[in-house]
Amino acid sequence: MSIRVSVDASGGDHGISVTIPAGIAALKEISDLEIVFVGNKANIQSEIDKSSLNNKFLNRVYIQHASEIVAMDELPSHALRRKKDSSMRVAINLVKEGKVSACVSAGNTGALMAISRFVLKTIQGVDRPAIMARIPTYSGHTHVLDLGANVDSSPAALLEFAIMGSEAVKHTENVKRPTVGLLNVGEEEIKGNEKIKNTASLIKNTNLNYYGYVEGDDIYKGVVDVVVCDGFEGNIALKASEGVVGLMSFFLKKAFSKNLLTKLGAFIVLPILRKVKSDLDPGKYNGATLLGLKGIVVKSHGGAGVNSFKNAIHEAYRESKVHITDKISEQITKEVLQNNE
Amino acid sequence: MSIRVSVDASGGDHGISVTIPAGIAALKEISDLEIVFVGNKANIQSEIDKSSLNNKFLNRVYIQHASEIVAMDELPSHALRRKKDSSMRVAINLVKEGKVSACVSAGNTGALMAISRFVLKTIQGVDRPAIMARIPTYSGHTHVLDLGANVDSSPAALLEFAIMGSEAVKHTENVKRPTVGLLNVGEEEIKGNEKIKNTASLIKNTNLNYYGYVEGDDIYKGVVDVVVCDGFEGNIALKASEGVVGLMSFFLKKAFSKNLLTKLGAFIVLPILRKVKSDLDPGKYNGATLLGLKGIVVKSHGGAGVNSFKNAIHEAYRESKVHITDKISEQITKEVLQNNE
Repeated sequence: MSIRVSVDASGGDHGISVTIPAGIAALKEISDLEIVFVGNKANIQSEIDKSSLNNKFLNRVYIQHASEIVAMDELPSHALRRKKDSSMRVAINLVKEGKVSACVSAGNTGALMAISRFVLKTIQGVDRPAIMARIPTYSGHTHVLDLGANVDSSPAALLEFAIMGSEAVKHTENVKRPTVGLLNVGEEEIKGNEKIKNTASLIKNTNLNYYGYVEGDDIYKGVVDVVVCDGFEGNIALKASEGVVGLMSFFLKKAFSKNLLTKLGAFIVLPILRKVKSDLDPGKYNGATLLGLKGIVVKSHGGAGVNSFKNAIHEAYRESKVHITDKISEQITKEVLQNNE
Repeated sequence: MSIRVSVDASGGDHGISVTIPAGIAALKEISDLEIVFVGNKANIQSEIDKSSLNNKFLNRVYIQHASEIVAMDELPSHALRRKKDSSMRVAINLVKEGKVSACVSAGNTGALMAISRFVLKTIQGVDRPAIMARIPTYSGHTHVLDLGANVDSSPAALLEFAIMGSEAVKHTENVKRPTVGLLNVGEEEIKGNEKIKNTASLIKNTNLNYYGYVEGDDIYKGVVDVVVCDGFEGNIALKASEGVVGLMSFFLKKAFSKNLLTKLGAFIVLPILRKVKSDLDPGKYNGATLLGLKGIVVKSHGGAGVNSFKNAIHEAYRESKVHITDKISEQITKEVLQNNE
């Protein structure tokens, strides 16, 4: 059976000029993928026409009209209440109605989370959904959640994040027993705040492959497969990383403009620097996943180009293929609901 | 009147081979500085002899013997209870006894904090001391506190950090009204956890030059003079930054080993990369300051070289010169104690 995915075609900084070519590229790479592009019908059609797709591919393309667009800086509450016919909302509705198995959007993160929660609801036993992204490491990548959907998460919520992250990595990446670490200020048992210590106790009582505490730098060392944290720390860790990468590039560029020899070096260095900076940007790789909803929603980076947005569609396809929502639901039932009975 | 500073000569990864030359270099740069080197007397004396100092400088050098050393990985509680004659403890005792106005150590941070708190006690109205460090930015540097001394800080404690950081920057760097930002996950008023929102309300009721919320990347953009956060987030932000800088260097080096042209580039790039990495390391510049104690304690980076350790001595001198402890005490009295009356 084919996997059908809805694409919020108008979302993101670039809208259809990125989402349509990305979708078409994904259709060419995945033979059992079907895409429903959601947005202004005429504009989507004319963008598709540009690509001169042959019927083999056109047969797997659908268009669903939506008259509104959620702005990148729009308040989530406003997008939720006032934009009932936005491309984002309609794309998510299609998941709810069972017409597609997943939705991909490069739109406003807060709005995407608010609308997804409202329309799809959370899996039974999951209090709040979390945002998980892949983060590059020395030898590959790791996964971090939550990245800002929730602040003031309780130990019970952090346990849910751990279960959801572990299940997602297990099934989409074929890691038998993903290692799970808790982000803390030290590796010793006595370190950390009360919330983290209580979370550790909860996790130890599950079948998760719990590694223990990890520190901020361990994220990039790839010490574990899944790093669990409250959205407050997750967001600060990632934003600080982004900030220091920008500063490091700035210092390097400045150093290279010093003299003729270094300018010669810059000629070789700058393209490499650009590539490395882009490789380091977590969201750019294949987007982030909203976990814990009754449906699959993948958030692409707002500024994503064709290739990155295509990767986000691949991610939605992979998650659909393994029925990740069901897997998470089963695990939450086993580890949380039955334990609490 | 001269400023006298005690130096934990045996502390840090390198001990007297770094601390003594650094101290001597500082004595040559600051004419009214006196140093008490604390540690094994014979070893210190022989290191000083190597430098062939003339009497003009030797007159400003003192040695205080201490028979023990706090190990870099020693438990703070052990160092506090069992190492009563450690170079660190004796150096701090000299502050307590009024024999010096400040202490500089490159030793174990946890032990330094524990011993300083025990020996010196906190300023009246300060619940817990905080660690503040300079962080590099595009156009200079900013200051962040707390960097890991405290987790689960209350809004009242965060307010104390804001007052202490602001006073320290005002007097040691001659910034008339330092801007103060609260580290959060967004800049809008509605963002963040309850603790941050409550802290913002408290700060708005003071005379601090409050900027508002700042995000992780704003640290490196230098948006404000002082960034205030709980030690949990401060530590995670800095460790994550450290991790990503390491990863970025790794990626760059790998890219440069690709072919002959890039290898030629590497020849020019690697020294620059090393310099930039070192510039980015916050602790390496001039150490971190323990604020809120009844006495000045400066923590140098454990792996500091002669120049960095010398900068930490300069920092201790600057803080002594402006009587930073008194200034913080006055401000805490004005903003906290009198407001609570």
